[in-house]
Amino acid sequence: MKVGIINVSGYAGSELARILHSHPEVELASVTGRSAAGKRLGEIYPHLERLDLTITPDLTGSLDVVFSALPHAASAERVGPLVEQGVNVIDLSADFRLKDLSVYEEWYKVEHPCPQYVEDAVYGLTELHRTEVAPASLVAVPGCYPTASILGLAPAMKAGIIEPDIIVDAKSGVSGAGRGKFPYSEVNESVMAYSLDGHRHMPEISQELDRLDGSADVALTFVPHLVPMTRGILASCYAPLKKAAFASGDVAKARVREVYNDFYSDESFVTVVDEPPMTKHTLGNNCCLVYPTVDTRAGRLVVISCLDNLIKGAAGQAVQNMNLMLGYPEDEGLRQLAIYP
Amino acid sequence: MKVGIINVSGYAGSELARILHSHPEVELASVTGRSAAGKRLGEIYPHLERLDLTITPDLTGSLDVVFSALPHAASAERVGPLVEQGVNVIDLSADFRLKDLSVYEEWYKVEHPCPQYVEDAVYGLTELHRTEVAPASLVAVPGCYPTASILGLAPAMKAGIIEPDIIVDAKSGVSGAGRGKFPYSEVNESVMAYSLDGHRHMPEISQELDRLDGSADVALTFVPHLVPMTRGILASCYAPLKKAAFASGDVAKARVREVYNDFYSDESFVTVVDEPPMTKHTLGNNCCLVYPTVDTRAGRLVVISCLDNLIKGAAGQAVQNMNLMLGYPEDEGLRQLAIYP
Amino acid sequence: MKVGIINVSGYAGSELARILHSHPEVELASVTGRSAAGKRLGEIYPHLERLDLTITPDLTGSLDVVFSALPHAASAERVGPLVEQGVNVIDLSADFRLKDLSVYEEWYKVEHPCPQYVEDAVYGLTELHRTEVAPASLVAVPGCYPTASILGLAPAMKAGIIEPDIIVDAKSGVSGAGRGKFPYSEVNESVMAYSLDGHRHMPEISQELDRLDGSADVALTFVPHLVPMTRGILASCYAPLKKAAFASGDVAKARVREVYNDFYSDESFVTVVDEPPMTKHTLGNNCCLVYPTVDTRAGRLVVISCLDNLIKGAAGQAVQNMNLMLGYPEDEGLRQLAIYP
Amino acid sequence: MKVGIINVSGYAGSELARILHSHPEVELASVTGRSAAGKRLGEIYPHLERLDLTITPDLTGSLDVVFSALPHAASAERVGPLVEQGVNVIDLSADFRLKDLSVYEEWYKVEHPCPQYVEDAVYGLTELHRTEVAPASLVAVPGCYPTASILGLAPAMKAGIIEPDIIVDAKSGVSGAGRGKFPYSEVNESVMAYSLDGHRHMPEISQELDRLDGSADVALTFVPHLVPMTRGILASCYAPLKKAAFASGDVAKARVREVYNDFYSDESFVTVVDEPPMTKHTLGNNCCLVYPTVDTRAGRLVVISCLDNLIKGAAGQAVQNMNLMLGYPEDEGLRQLAIYP
Repeated sequence: MKVGIINVSGYAGSELARILHSHPEVELASVTGRSAAGKRLGEIYPHLERLDLTITPDLTGSLDVVFSALPHAASAERVGPLVEQGVNVIDLSADFRLKDLSVYEEWYKVEHPCPQYVEDAVYGLTELHRTEVAPASLVAVPGCYPTASILGLAPAMKAGIIEPDIIVDAKSGVSGAGRGKFPYSEVNESVMAYSLDGHRHMPEISQELDRLDGSADVALTFVPHLVPMTRGILASCYAPLKKAAFASGDVAKARVREVYNDFYSDESFVTVVDEPPMTKHTLGNNCCLVYPTVDTRAGRLVVISCLDNLIKGAAGQAVQNMNLMLGYPEDEGLRQLAIYP
Repeated sequence: MKVGIINVSGYAGSELARILHSHPEVELASVTGRSAAGKRLGEIYPHLERLDLTITPDLTGSLDVVFSALPHAASAERVGPLVEQGVNVIDLSADFRLKDLSVYEEWYKVEHPCPQYVEDAVYGLTELHRTEVAPASLVAVPGCYPTASILGLAPAMKAGIIEPDIIVDAKSGVSGAGRGKFPYSEVNESVMAYSLDGHRHMPEISQELDRLDGSADVALTFVPHLVPMTRGILASCYAPLKKAAFASGDVAKARVREVYNDFYSDESFVTVVDEPPMTKHTLGNNCCLVYPTVDTRAGRLVVISCLDNLIKGAAGQAVQNMNLMLGYPEDEGLRQLAIYP
Repeated sequence: MKVGIINVSGYAGSELARILHSHPEVELASVTGRSAAGKRLGEIYPHLERLDLTITPDLTGSLDVVFSALPHAASAERVGPLVEQGVNVIDLSADFRLKDLSVYEEWYKVEHPCPQYVEDAVYGLTELHRTEVAPASLVAVPGCYPTASILGLAPAMKAGIIEPDIIVDAKSGVSGAGRGKFPYSEVNESVMAYSLDGHRHMPEISQELDRLDGSADVALTFVPHLVPMTRGILASCYAPLKKAAFASGDVAKARVREVYNDFYSDESFVTVVDEPPMTKHTLGNNCCLVYPTVDTRAGRLVVISCLDNLIKGAAGQAVQNMNLMLGYPEDEGLRQLAIYP
Repeated sequence: MKVGIINVSGYAGSELARILHSHPEVELASVTGRSAAGKRLGEIYPHLERLDLTITPDLTGSLDVVFSALPHAASAERVGPLVEQGVNVIDLSADFRLKDLSVYEEWYKVEHPCPQYVEDAVYGLTELHRTEVAPASLVAVPGCYPTASILGLAPAMKAGIIEPDIIVDAKSGVSGAGRGKFPYSEVNESVMAYSLDGHRHMPEISQELDRLDGSADVALTFVPHLVPMTRGILASCYAPLKKAAFASGDVAKARVREVYNDFYSDESFVTVVDEPPMTKHTLGNNCCLVYPTVDTRAGRLVVISCLDNLIKGAAGQAVQNMNLMLGYPEDEGLRQLAIYP
């Protein structure tokens, strides 16, 4: 199978190239870029020199699957025609994640360039939408924050054990902001919160939590923070436990773990861990580590969830979806363990 | 005035030495250490070579004020006799922070060595206990997390605009754990939550929030995180706004800012800032930066508060208290601006 | 083929486990540890949980190849009997690197526990000793600094274009010191030189440079530095160009590049690069990047060489040697690209 | 005395502002900026909010001393007229550092805008040019790399104990490149060499070494490296010891230390240390730490020298010069100890 990447020059694009290079079943046949067009891929990313590819302004040749790593709006414009031609498209932008066009337009301040494909696009959080992904022709890869947050909360939400009153306090490394952002001297040795008036990943999280809750009334506060590291996202999720659901204390902790273990028992890429996880344990692999517990004094569910924002939070999850769409084992090309330390 | 430091060999002790060295009104006359006794201070801390002091096993000479940077329990044992002799004591350990002995003993798993002084000891969060600090002979310097958390929540708590249902998600640099902790390779490029079953700074925060609220029923979830930086704490504080208190939206934000501006209008060391602050803006100085806002969708107060854990969160605040006790200007020796970048 | 690791609990051991896990031709059948014996590997290294191995005090079962990641002296003691039994041994310690026993004993301050195997042991810098490695039964994996330094200097040394008056100024991340070393707060935001009276990797570099030079008189100054990062070594190598060898200026640069390109033209794991490389371009893979140039004003060869100290500088090079010993393609299990950024 | 800063918006400018704010004898009366003109200083540097200054396009009011933190060429153009008017000028750019105009023009690729002041300008490496600085009206503050390198080599050079065949391998934090440079994700966890074809600080070092050597033939190789930290420069300096100068071994080490101790015995800001120093021990203060030793096997002097590139390597040294020019104690406003850890 031949695959292509639109806009290989950002971090999501370059990680896609790296992962696809070692995927035994596909050939990365075409990569595009804007300002980098005409250059060899190895010129802008020396670690990819061995791929021996030249960046072109447009895709070339016949392709079975196309990944788009363009920014929102630009992505929908570019992949619309491909979808029409019947090419399988996996879009890493935000364009096809939100089912409600008015929400998209409110948060992204732009008219949707391709509204006709929104309904049929599948939200590619594989663990929650596996059966829809396989037959899909357009998959929207979730954002990095939503992947960590939703995987952290889904079992509790689905099981109905928490009130729909949720706080996600997320911590991200710098690479999530894209290539060339944040000068070292002003990020290092510092932590800050940002987007306190509302981050664009919030409505995505809300949409999925509402769906899991079967309601439309989840009150969600989402506050992202920038921490001085390159990769990794850790989401700390808080919600009141429903009083009826549990007795207090250790019983609640055990019951919550059971809910989570059951929910993820068959998953290759989500692990319910016994100790609070660190992002370093996910560096370079496609896993999300989830640690659910209970603050028994306050009667609150606390879940810590973490992943590599460029892998499970972007390129890896995109390939995971591709595997389903093409009928390969879900973890093909994604079995690499984390690099530690 | 002559001052001494018990246990100068940790980071709080060494920062005390550094700050006191440049304080124009006092002379650092004696520093003690255990394993380092007999060495010159400059041998264990080369940046303090100019202080020209030798570490002794016990305090020497007559001293007007003694700082203790010993661990809990060991500290109370050591300073008890000094209090009895009428020496002013400023204790950086946890021993005299908690007014309820049973809470102390539950969280610190030790019988209090000096219970007779607990009642009269003053909780040295200067901004909230200023009038008690001045005449005190024993001041308990708050923990680093509590300083950031309580300063972040105090105005809202005092004004009665939030429900007593609070989450503090705190992020700390590594120096808070003390000297020699956390190997670089396993901390760098990683974020993790810890002490999810309860951190010892929690009861301290509860005690002060209860006091401000005039109740004893604040439900507090406190989750600390370790981030890859040396200094700095950032506390993200969440609480539901009381419905009656505010209309929604921008009115709420403005009203909250007013509450905070009023509360801190006369403070030298707490600044209500207009943009979410970064810990880097406090490096090396005694300020706490507080940014209050409202998540208008969820009706929630969100406050971001940050400081240098070794200065305002430890040694600087200790000197701030000393200044009050000795009748100096509160910011004497503490006017240094942050080092940036 | 079944392989075992003695002392899996350090970083070299854990990286061996990670790499061997994804090697298609071998099975990691036994891992030992001292204090960790009895624990599951995933308990001490959560990222290795999927290997599903229990750490034992001694190797178990019949093994075709054994890696030792023990410290020097302890390693020779342990692998001696294995060599005697005819097991292929790949030793990551310093015990079999130095051919001159008196040099070993001078630098390591210990009597060699197994001197009888020193002569036949092969110094496993694969690129320089490939033909000896294949038939060897005992291979000594070079140190991380020597690998970077020797690969940086070998072509020039061999070609006889430099005077034997060499300085290697090397910069290493913290993981080279082993697990649990160097507290974060005292390493971060700092650079330092160390071992200025002589580092144990120096005689190893001397031995190989002497061999390449065909003399015994290379004057080598080797100064290692600790830089605040987890992985990576960068060696900056300096030597006077022989006057006779080159005309000055751009001719010299071009000629030097030719020498290097020729020397490494058939290598999978050494790349002569066109721009000064960064250690980040080697993170997690087995490559050494070499950039040779000339300071034409001073008539000096300058070579920058870098690699991942735990891969090409330890575990990866060990597996590269194993591949040769077992007759697999030299890059089997080692084709992974660097993780960037 | 009233002082002004031209171009306060870079790191050197902001550090000048911070230091001058706490200087008891001068008032910072005017600060200029280009794109930031019209803003309050606290808007672009929140940590400087307390200075209560507005950035103007041009200097305002009558000033006794003006610091220029403009880039080269732009600086000479701007300060020329001030020098003519008799204002004391301290220039942090490269414009007045090099005495040989042709060297300046070769390295900076620009015609010198103010050649008439080059001869009388004083190279403000205070320790070497103290007597010239006091009466000067135009002082050129040395670059950060030259300050560390020259202070590391000056005693040996002056004493005539080394051959004029020198290598300086320097490691710098990121702030040296100026504000907004180097995205975090591509600098963190990485080391690289740069400017291998010649760095602009090289001729400055040559000029001063030639002067100390009394010759014009020092062969200098200078290779800077970028390390992942914000502040700090560490220069590792290598030179062959003159054979006649010393017997080998420990005698040489002791003699070298004597040379260095003598040379710097009266200096406030250069300390000859007993252990290899780390840059962290200079964070935020004006000291240069120098550690001289001998590689007795190779007969080579090795000196490690380090400082805070924004203080002793820029703003602090500028203030040190100002103190001399205005007749204040040389360390006025500069007595702050390093912030550690």
